[in-house]
Amino acid sequence: MKITTATKHFRNPLYLESGRILEPYDISYETYGELNEAKDNVIVVCHALTGSHHAAGFYEGDAKPGWWDGMIGDNKCIDTTKYFVICANVIGSCFGSTGPMSPRYPLEESYRLRFPVITISDMVKAQISLLNSLGIYEVQAIIGGSMGGMQALCYAIEYPHFAKKHIIIASTYATQPWAIAFNKVAREAIIKDPRFNGGMYDAEDIKKNGLDGLAIGRMSGHISYLSENSMQKKFGRNYVENEGLYELFGRFQVERYLDYNGYNFSKWFDPLSYLYITKAINIFDAGRNYDSLEDSFSNIESNITLLSIKSDQLFFKEEMEHIKNIMKKIGKKDLVNYACIDSNYGHDAFLVEIDKFIPYIKDVLR
Amino acid sequence: MKITTATKHFRNPLYLESGRILEPYDISYETYGELNEAKDNVIVVCHALTGSHHAAGFYEGDAKPGWWDGMIGDNKCIDTTKYFVICANVIGSCFGSTGPMSPRYPLEESYRLRFPVITISDMVKAQISLLNSLGIYEVQAIIGGSMGGMQALCYAIEYPHFAKKHIIIASTYATQPWAIAFNKVAREAIIKDPRFNGGMYDAEDIKKNGLDGLAIGRMSGHISYLSENSMQKKFGRNYVENEGLYELFGRFQVERYLDYNGYNFSKWFDPLSYLYITKAINIFDAGRNYDSLEDSFSNIESNITLLSIKSDQLFFKEEMEHIKNIMKKIGKKDLVNYACIDSNYGHDAFLVEIDKFIPYIKDVLR
Repeated sequence: MKITTATKHFRNPLYLESGRILEPYDISYETYGELNEAKDNVIVVCHALTGSHHAAGFYEGDAKPGWWDGMIGDNKCIDTTKYFVICANVIGSCFGSTGPMSPRYPLEESYRLRFPVITISDMVKAQISLLNSLGIYEVQAIIGGSMGGMQALCYAIEYPHFAKKHIIIASTYATQPWAIAFNKVAREAIIKDPRFNGGMYDAEDIKKNGLDGLAIGRMSGHISYLSENSMQKKFGRNYVENEGLYELFGRFQVERYLDYNGYNFSKWFDPLSYLYITKAINIFDAGRNYDSLEDSFSNIESNITLLSIKSDQLFFKEEMEHIKNIMKKIGKKDLVNYACIDSNYGHDAFLVEIDKFIPYIKDVLR
Repeated sequence: MKITTATKHFRNPLYLESGRILEPYDISYETYGELNEAKDNVIVVCHALTGSHHAAGFYEGDAKPGWWDGMIGDNKCIDTTKYFVICANVIGSCFGSTGPMSPRYPLEESYRLRFPVITISDMVKAQISLLNSLGIYEVQAIIGGSMGGMQALCYAIEYPHFAKKHIIIASTYATQPWAIAFNKVAREAIIKDPRFNGGMYDAEDIKKNGLDGLAIGRMSGHISYLSENSMQKKFGRNYVENEGLYELFGRFQVERYLDYNGYNFSKWFDPLSYLYITKAINIFDAGRNYDSLEDSFSNIESNITLLSIKSDQLFFKEEMEHIKNIMKKIGKKDLVNYACIDSNYGHDAFLVEIDKFIPYIKDVLR
């Protein structure tokens, strides 16, 4: 599989939903497979909150591949012998695309809290610029889970002829207060950490030592990515061995899991990006710029496949069913496929139990 | 309704499950109604994590009554014209019973992190001492929700002839990793707040200004007390009016709810008590000192009524059903009643939608 990783610089303005302008801006992206001559074998993969453009393959020296390596590759479900797959880091993120820690042109200092509010529509608009700059004006499919699914839905509404198919996994039509509440705990923990320092933190220090508030916020996120069932199976009431004299004083394995993942995360993700991207998720509402969801969805002209997860505790399957129901209501039933994946892994299932998703995605791409 | 509020001082040692001794100790409690001559009209009410002995009636100048005022009173469900109701503040708490901020006798300084680990069994043992000191050796019923339900279950196992009936609401047989994870976010937020200062915080300062970490922890708790449905109904995607120029910058009503409740809470609850009581909840396992739950439950000799909540996202109804199933398995089916309350309010339903619980509790007390 041919992999390329690149960052593209755009001098033209990106007009944001907030009315502000991002100019210039960079987009980091990765591609898998080869673009055919007709440039008609493209699949766009959209990442989630803390994901990046590194969706597949191994970087030199890394023990772990990209976040959807089981899905993307030669003769895999998203088959790179046939398709040219592209994944772009969303604007606002911290892996190469322009975000709050990028220099605020023409100055050299970072935007920090002067960075504009970014929406899911803005992320998609930036991706369209990237794709157009590569000579791509039409794609076979857009696929994404969680916040990636929001992007896929946004493509379907705002660029109805851009993709033939959209696969929206474990996502929603509009972020509900339950998800906003989990984000609130994280946002508050970050903002109130004294080392966050009103956004003027020492970035080098945080990369080295992490930020407690971001670690605590990530723990809150992890709860919503799992499910009571998956936690019970994974951790039960087991204690970490050899810690504490006896069990009343010990640490639970679920606590160690949250410690490990929380504090590690806070060394590799940027606190301001976390604030900006959770804001984009919170304000996501596919009906916002329309009279109603019905009105919004009436723009959709091509196929959308909805894959919900039975045990999803972040974006509940009922939210995905709501998309299906509205499409039916407005007479676009033929454009929608819906399946609920029977997994106990909660929201994370699309990353950890991908075998259950493969038959559905293969079927759509066939 | 006659209400008395008192604090009783105990000079004798309280032998704790950890092997440590609490000596002396205080228990604050409140009673409603009058104890009859035979002292056989007693009902014990057990409070939850952040509750207190103030279960009913109004304190002078207070706008809000005790936490279960709708349930307890003259001619109410727990009828104080018939029953003498008693509610004690659990040890480890911060409303008058001995806790981590109590003086470490014979010194005048507070225990703080030198306070011993407290278990649900310890809380119950202290309550038994209190009841015995009042000449009460048998009661009509023990009733509690959430951590109060753990206490009721503990009474049934460890003091099988003490109460005729136990009503266990929205609780569990052993705290599962899902609940431990929510507590973890709170515990970590408290411990990592620099003003917590390794437990040596300035208590006056915190009472006045609150503690960010405790506020953030409370927000995490609130998520688990509600449900996706109740949040959707209560807040939807509504913004707080007149905040922010337009919606992209506004604050959601669910965020305001968490802000308000989190930061207020951190002024009226003690951070160390929060750590000690969540620890007691985390380590609660009705089977811990036995070979198995079956073995543990085989001690139960009197009636237990289990009331779960359909939408409970903290202690799932399946956990309550597990208690029923084990009782059946060991041939004690006749001692168990089980009902699942059809409420969308989540875990908090037993505090906010009490009308749905009243018929069941009335029925048990009849």
